[in-house]
Amino acid sequence: MKAVLLAGAASLSLAGAPLDAKKRAPVAEIPLAEQGLVDNVNGYTLDGKGALVRFTGLLIDRDGKVVHLLKSGDTRPQRPDFKLDGKGRTLLPGLIDAHGHVQGLGEQALSLDLTGTKSLAEAQARLAAYAPAHTGSAWIRGGGWNQETWKLGRFPTAADLDAIVRDRPILLERIDGHATLANSAAMAAAGISAKTKDPAGGRIERDAKGNPTGLFVDSARALVEQAAPARLPRERDQAFAAAQDILLADGITATCDMGTSVEDWEAMRRAGDLGRLRLRVVSYAFGLEPALAVAGTGPTPWLYAGRLRMVGVKFYGDGALGSRGAALKQPYADAPGQKGTLFNDDAKLKNLMSRAAMDDFQVAVHAIGDAANAEVLDAINELSDTYKGDRRWRIEHAQIVDVKDLPRFAQHGTIASMQPSHATSDHKMAIARLGPDRLGGAYAWKAMLDLKVPLAFGSDYPVEDPNPFAGLADAVTRQDAAGDPPGGWLPEQKLTLTQAFAAFTIGAAYAAKAEDKVGSLEPGHYADFILVDRDPFAVDPAALRETKVLETWVGGQRAWMKK
Amino acid sequence: MKAVLLAGAASLSLAGAPLDAKKRAPVAEIPLAEQGLVDNVNGYTLDGKGALVRFTGLLIDRDGKVVHLLKSGDTRPQRPDFKLDGKGRTLLPGLIDAHGHVQGLGEQALSLDLTGTKSLAEAQARLAAYAPAHTGSAWIRGGGWNQETWKLGRFPTAADLDAIVRDRPILLERIDGHATLANSAAMAAAGISAKTKDPAGGRIERDAKGNPTGLFVDSARALVEQAAPARLPRERDQAFAAAQDILLADGITATCDMGTSVEDWEAMRRAGDLGRLRLRVVSYAFGLEPALAVAGTGPTPWLYAGRLRMVGVKFYGDGALGSRGAALKQPYADAPGQKGTLFNDDAKLKNLMSRAAMDDFQVAVHAIGDAANAEVLDAINELSDTYKGDRRWRIEHAQIVDVKDLPRFAQHGTIASMQPSHATSDHKMAIARLGPDRLGGAYAWKAMLDLKVPLAFGSDYPVEDPNPFAGLADAVTRQDAAGDPPGGWLPEQKLTLTQAFAAFTIGAAYAAKAEDKVGSLEPGHYADFILVDRDPFAVDPAALRETKVLETWVGGQRAWMKK
Repeated sequence: MKAVLLAGAASLSLAGAPLDAKKRAPVAEIPLAEQGLVDNVNGYTLDGKGALVRFTGLLIDRDGKVVHLLKSGDTRPQRPDFKLDGKGRTLLPGLIDAHGHVQGLGEQALSLDLTGTKSLAEAQARLAAYAPAHTGSAWIRGGGWNQETWKLGRFPTAADLDAIVRDRPILLERIDGHATLANSAAMAAAGISAKTKDPAGGRIERDAKGNPTGLFVDSARALVEQAAPARLPRERDQAFAAAQDILLADGITATCDMGTSVEDWEAMRRAGDLGRLRLRVVSYAFGLEPALAVAGTGPTPWLYAGRLRMVGVKFYGDGALGSRGAALKQPYADAPGQKGTLFNDDAKLKNLMSRAAMDDFQVAVHAIGDAANAEVLDAINELSDTYKGDRRWRIEHAQIVDVKDLPRFAQHGTIASMQPSHATSDHKMAIARLGPDRLGGAYAWKAMLDLKVPLAFGSDYPVEDPNPFAGLADAVTRQDAAGDPPGGWLPEQKLTLTQAFAAFTIGAAYAAKAEDKVGSLEPGHYADFILVDRDPFAVDPAALRETKVLETWVGGQRAWMKK
Repeated sequence: MKAVLLAGAASLSLAGAPLDAKKRAPVAEIPLAEQGLVDNVNGYTLDGKGALVRFTGLLIDRDGKVVHLLKSGDTRPQRPDFKLDGKGRTLLPGLIDAHGHVQGLGEQALSLDLTGTKSLAEAQARLAAYAPAHTGSAWIRGGGWNQETWKLGRFPTAADLDAIVRDRPILLERIDGHATLANSAAMAAAGISAKTKDPAGGRIERDAKGNPTGLFVDSARALVEQAAPARLPRERDQAFAAAQDILLADGITATCDMGTSVEDWEAMRRAGDLGRLRLRVVSYAFGLEPALAVAGTGPTPWLYAGRLRMVGVKFYGDGALGSRGAALKQPYADAPGQKGTLFNDDAKLKNLMSRAAMDDFQVAVHAIGDAANAEVLDAINELSDTYKGDRRWRIEHAQIVDVKDLPRFAQHGTIASMQPSHATSDHKMAIARLGPDRLGGAYAWKAMLDLKVPLAFGSDYPVEDPNPFAGLADAVTRQDAAGDPPGGWLPEQKLTLTQAFAAFTIGAAYAAKAEDKVGSLEPGHYADFILVDRDPFAVDPAALRETKVLETWVGGQRAWMKK
């Protein structure tokens, strides 16, 4: 996870600046009392049909919305209330992540990150630096360690942590997420002793005398994890703030939060109530319960000048490919006895989706395997008889789709909400899981577009890095940052940059039922834009991936700036 | 519970009315661009020191706040944006209930009310009318029946209800709250059969064959109650709307909600988000958990233009006097072996209060018996060393206070939050519970005032009727509506009307940390006022009790009007 880059928020405001009309002459052609001018930019946006529009200036009204896009020959207002000189830099619409986990990103950012440590000593040093700087939390949590990289020749132990911190419990996840290292304080808090038995599906690492060493594998992790206290409101607020800063620094001005708990929601409302909400968040409740508790009888209105809304509900259709939880129609190629797990039978899934749809909540269902995608498509097909109108059913991930199911996405306008970086991260594993013959509908975003399926892109942060320029590069190359595989994986699924850009802007906005507000800089939309250090449309994909955001503006206000 | 009187909300707006400046000449002396004039009223308010102020007109600004109070000789603006002619009627500040339960009031109002039914047939007729008009709820709930009043000669049975409604479960509480009558559908949903055993402390009424008849007494009530589903968001919203209408119709423009759950809060936020919040609600969380979940690290800001805030946390020190749960220093006079129950030991209570105070939440503790009041006063005394500044500790009810503890309220500015109607409702029971010699500090609001204790009045609705004019009459007479007891109970505790009025306005506002916003109509306060059908300061207490509200205005907007 990258460092948190926090700038003075909203220090430069175009919207809502007080007007001292007596000092100003009326501005010709511009009827609004207050306005901002962003000028001298290399501007791009997409119009509602996905066509690239170029401009060199932007007029913003007092509500933070775009009034006009200006070409180089167009007359500029002589005395705008504020002017930002872009100095020729490239201006893009703020990018939109259609699928992320805001609080998860923030919690990850605030935890102890041991990724990349080369030795136990280095990890201990990071812990030694982290602990005194993070005294607000009763427990220290973190992860990313790998004893192989440390060349330790053994698993680390509680004693290795106790040497640094004895007075606070510590839980550190192994980089693969399959083991947790606890210090003695954490084991004591969890009541772990030599008498604690290994649970089914898990293992407690022990010394020669049978005493737990501090390492808890697979299902045994829960023995220590469950002892950790619930996060405090302060920690939740810190996590939200951290996530907001990371996303704004990455050029993301709006995001779908895919699975919002009541506690997550309250943290976002506190940010809104206290005027600290700079990012736009479109929330999908973590199942029915928080949707009913928070939004009640239907989606909330837009709150905080278009910065927060609970619009829908997220359900899970199956698990993930890596752990062979994704539900496949045929057995896993690398585990012939397994087909993964559908989380609900057909009737249950339809009941859940129906309960959400009847109150007009948008429905988003996680489906990774081809069997899960088919089940959700079946459910949508059946529910569409009852729930008509603009429903915008979403399938999240849509990673492995049976080729014959691909056209079914288009039948009821189902949105394919996909993550380009998953394809580049997963490609070797996906080939292993499926074999070479079942990849025709794998991460098939180009096929979706050809079939007129609404496509939205995101990153699934914090599972992947939220940087959308990495996602754009992944989408157009089907290669990872190292250029693997050469020529791209399943290269027929490559998109043009404009297509990928659309999925990260107007496509993601449409998926969030927000295309009238964000995604484009056409007049009437919020002035959510970024200034970047290069022209993504004029560089090669490797350079595209390295694009750096210089400033991020949300609703006509500067929300982040590179220091 | 009185009928819900719903008028078109906020149909007449002074605040925020569009200004068409071109059509208007400038108004002399009044610098504001938009203003409303309420004129020709017999106006009363209290100033910050509790002195009565008279006026005949009121100027309101665009924020819905009072600009000027006008005497009869004062110049009026010639062309205000809006003018309300009071036609000589009496105008009072909106009354404030310092202790009520908003959702509980609404739920009671929406449930089937069998109070006053004279026969089983009459009750069945009410059920028959209620059921088709309330199809939104899966279960029918209600109460208020009394087989004695019905002269039934037996307890009612499930069959009596099944004759009217078979397809929906029904639960009806006996008027004393000690028994629940269920129909067959409710018993089936709860899995009740002849095999179900009586729980400790409860009884299932049975026929000769041992089959449950439908009546569940005391702890057996839970057997059927627990089967009822959680309230739906729609039901919660309806309950909030009903409560709001009742309170506004009673002339209450602001209320403390004394024990807000997360679900209660979300219902109020939905009302706010959707522009349906007309009442002002100052919320005290139902213990720490909802305070931390909702407000997080401290009280929320004022939301929705001063209409909602979570400012504090409510705890329980003891139970109630009627059930002998109130904690007394000496045994109950009518139960010599019992002294009631302190809900927390001293350390636990201080820990809870400390946890709330450390995040600057205001602390309100329910204390009815003299032992509970002493325990809370002890806790406040000790915590005041740590938590300095403007803490405004509140003791809710403060019904039975040891005379020597009365002065301790004043030591740390502890607010006595009392309910005049409890005194008139409880006086016979209180005499029975305590005997004649321990009443020196019973419902002792005059003693509190004499000792300079900040006094706030409320009703504890829905336990008592929220009508504040009943409360005012109770406070000045110490008699109930029937005039009992003659001369008033413990008449030395009678207040003057001005004193009682203060406790229902500026006193309650101070208790809610809102005295800068509401309670008075002095300039700078919100224009929260009511027009009533008589001059309460010019009539006798019996007529005072019958005062009818004609219009209720909140923040310069008409929020309710008598039809």
